[in-house]
Amino acid sequence: MQQYELAVLPGDGIGNEVMPEALRVLDAVSAKYGLRFSYRHFDWSCETYRSTGRMMPADGLDRLRDHDAILLGAVGWPGVPDHISLWGLLLPIRRAFDQYVNLRPVRLLPGVTPPVRDKQPGDIDFWVVRENTEGEYSQLGGRQGEGTPNEMVLQTAAFTRRGTDRIMRYAFELARKLDKPHVTSATKSNGIYHSMPYWDERFAAIAAEYPDVTTDEYHIDILCARFVMTPERFDVVVASNLFGDILSDLGPGVTGTIGVAPSGNINPERTYPSTFEPVHGSAPDLAGRGIANPIGQIWSAAMMLDHLGQAEAAADVVGAIERVLSDAAAPRTPDLGGQATTEDLGKAIAAAV
Amino acid sequence: MQQYELAVLPGDGIGNEVMPEALRVLDAVSAKYGLRFSYRHFDWSCETYRSTGRMMPADGLDRLRDHDAILLGAVGWPGVPDHISLWGLLLPIRRAFDQYVNLRPVRLLPGVTPPVRDKQPGDIDFWVVRENTEGEYSQLGGRQGEGTPNEMVLQTAAFTRRGTDRIMRYAFELARKLDKPHVTSATKSNGIYHSMPYWDERFAAIAAEYPDVTTDEYHIDILCARFVMTPERFDVVVASNLFGDILSDLGPGVTGTIGVAPSGNINPERTYPSTFEPVHGSAPDLAGRGIANPIGQIWSAAMMLDHLGQAEAAADVVGAIERVLSDAAAPRTPDLGGQATTEDLGKAIAAAV
Ligand SMILES: CC(C)[C@H](C(=O)O)[C@@H](O)C(=O)O
Ligand SMILES: CC(C)[C@H](C(=O)O)[C@@H](O)C(=O)O
Repeated sequence: MQQYELAVLPGDGIGNEVMPEALRVLDAVSAKYGLRFSYRHFDWSCETYRSTGRMMPADGLDRLRDHDAILLGAVGWPGVPDHISLWGLLLPIRRAFDQYVNLRPVRLLPGVTPPVRDKQPGDIDFWVVRENTEGEYSQLGGRQGEGTPNEMVLQTAAFTRRGTDRIMRYAFELARKLDKPHVTSATKSNGIYHSMPYWDERFAAIAAEYPDVTTDEYHIDILCARFVMTPERFDVVVASNLFGDILSDLGPGVTGTIGVAPSGNINPERTYPSTFEPVHGSAPDLAGRGIANPIGQIWSAAMMLDHLGQAEAAADVVGAIERVLSDAAAPRTPDLGGQATTEDLGKAIAAAV
Repeated sequence: MQQYELAVLPGDGIGNEVMPEALRVLDAVSAKYGLRFSYRHFDWSCETYRSTGRMMPADGLDRLRDHDAILLGAVGWPGVPDHISLWGLLLPIRRAFDQYVNLRPVRLLPGVTPPVRDKQPGDIDFWVVRENTEGEYSQLGGRQGEGTPNEMVLQTAAFTRRGTDRIMRYAFELARKLDKPHVTSATKSNGIYHSMPYWDERFAAIAAEYPDVTTDEYHIDILCARFVMTPERFDVVVASNLFGDILSDLGPGVTGTIGVAPSGNINPERTYPSTFEPVHGSAPDLAGRGIANPIGQIWSAAMMLDHLGQAEAAADVVGAIERVLSDAAAPRTPDLGGQATTEDLGKAIAAAV
């Protein structure tokens, strides 16, 4: 029996409510596919920070290291500045475990009404491949003249050849699995003087290694507009850390799935565990009411299954989500226009598996 | 008779086709309001670059300085890298003339079908106030280890207190003119470690000077999603150079007006001339066919009139644009679903003034 050791970090807010539903669905998968998941729970969160002054213990990363994957809920809570909560937990995990791919599907789902008109499920179905360890998310920089009128803050982004090439190759490899492989690069080489022309240069170099894959490039400003105007045109979009962050929220915004979108923070070589987490945050306004939509967490668990080599089980979970969403009689949480609880929806999806 | 000296730079591609229509409309305004515009034409463009190795002459900025305003078409052409054409013409003008406000309306227009559903003209009507002289658009940085596997590029963004405070104050002042003044700040202080927490800090400080104005803040990722999901919620959105660039293309993308959106690069103190240009680019695929939509250029001229203190004339031009767009019998360029030429549409708007 294939066995997986999973680290489970619900984090803050609704993370604690949606995580049990993902585990419920994994248990259903376990029974059906003869897989065994053992869960180690970690309660690191903004509460940990308030009581200990740290988001996780000093040896936190070591304690996560020996797992097959990490399931994360949401990190962040009012009162703890985001750059503390995130740079104290989420971002160190991404970096320490060299999870250099942030992979997010943009998919129009059945039963979800998107804000854009004239699109059907199937029309919009693509991947954002985001660089996840360097680029604009950087602690390089600082402040001069604090508190004076001459105050100035510098913020440096770092792009390495290694970091740039490997994310692009990942995107091209992913595209190769498609019928008509196509990769779009998000750039801003007309405004950002050093890093983005370099990004373009490396994109051209890596594209040359994949003559069977067609490409195009858009500046991030017009690319964002195109996500709204012609979202059906994309297959794989490769982007820097910041641009990928933007595009992978905007995409689900366009498909109306921001509350249910999943993501994988992936170390493709599997030297380290990868982290799977919903795109949504801890939703302080919703937390504690038991009505958060658990699909983002469940779908993230499906991405985890795929990463662990259980493609069939992964597809099965996504299929179960789609069937439940298509079924007018199935439970729906308030964000989907229904009255169901988090647990109702989680149970329905587990049952559909 | 009030007289204005205007520098006219059509630039590249369709810039040359839409500019005459803006001047046609200004001539109509001139007749109606007793204003006098004298135009000095500059042919600086990517062609200039190809023949001289420079986008503009060495004394280019000096030659522009003594005008009341600059009307710009579009800059950029295939074969000339964007970071050369833009950093050789557009961006130096913005900086030399301290045009620190990039102001762009996001407005759902009559007669334009937006990609989002269930919105009517009037529902979406707000301003993006973009910092236009510092921030992420920076030449600070460079490359190390060129051509080696250790190659690395650093790109530094610079945020000064002066630069940050003045754009925020502009946004609050603009909001004060509204009925229920509200300013939204675009940030990313959860991921970008130094500059964006500083941005938030200054936003809080400046907001405290305007107790009558309500505020909120969104990280740029979710803000982009909200532009699609709830665009009717915004009044004035203040953003850094890069974030403002993104939002001010995305906004018109949402309203279906990307081909017609205008912008002002404004030096509010009027120490230097301000530049008014459409958001669209030089459109190489469209250029030379006489069918580009001139509304972005004409609307930009309206923004110029407003900046020059001719608010009534400015409103008149915007009204003329809206009337022509609402009139099913009026000429429409192909992007609006018609067969009219650039000139047909320009003439119709001039006549409507
Ligand atoms: C052409 C480019 C440098 C420019 C910018 O990013 O500022 C354009 O996108 C704009 O918004 O005016
Ligand atoms: C919370 C934040 C730091 C994070 C990011 O920007 O990476 C989030 O937006 C995401 O996309 O996972």
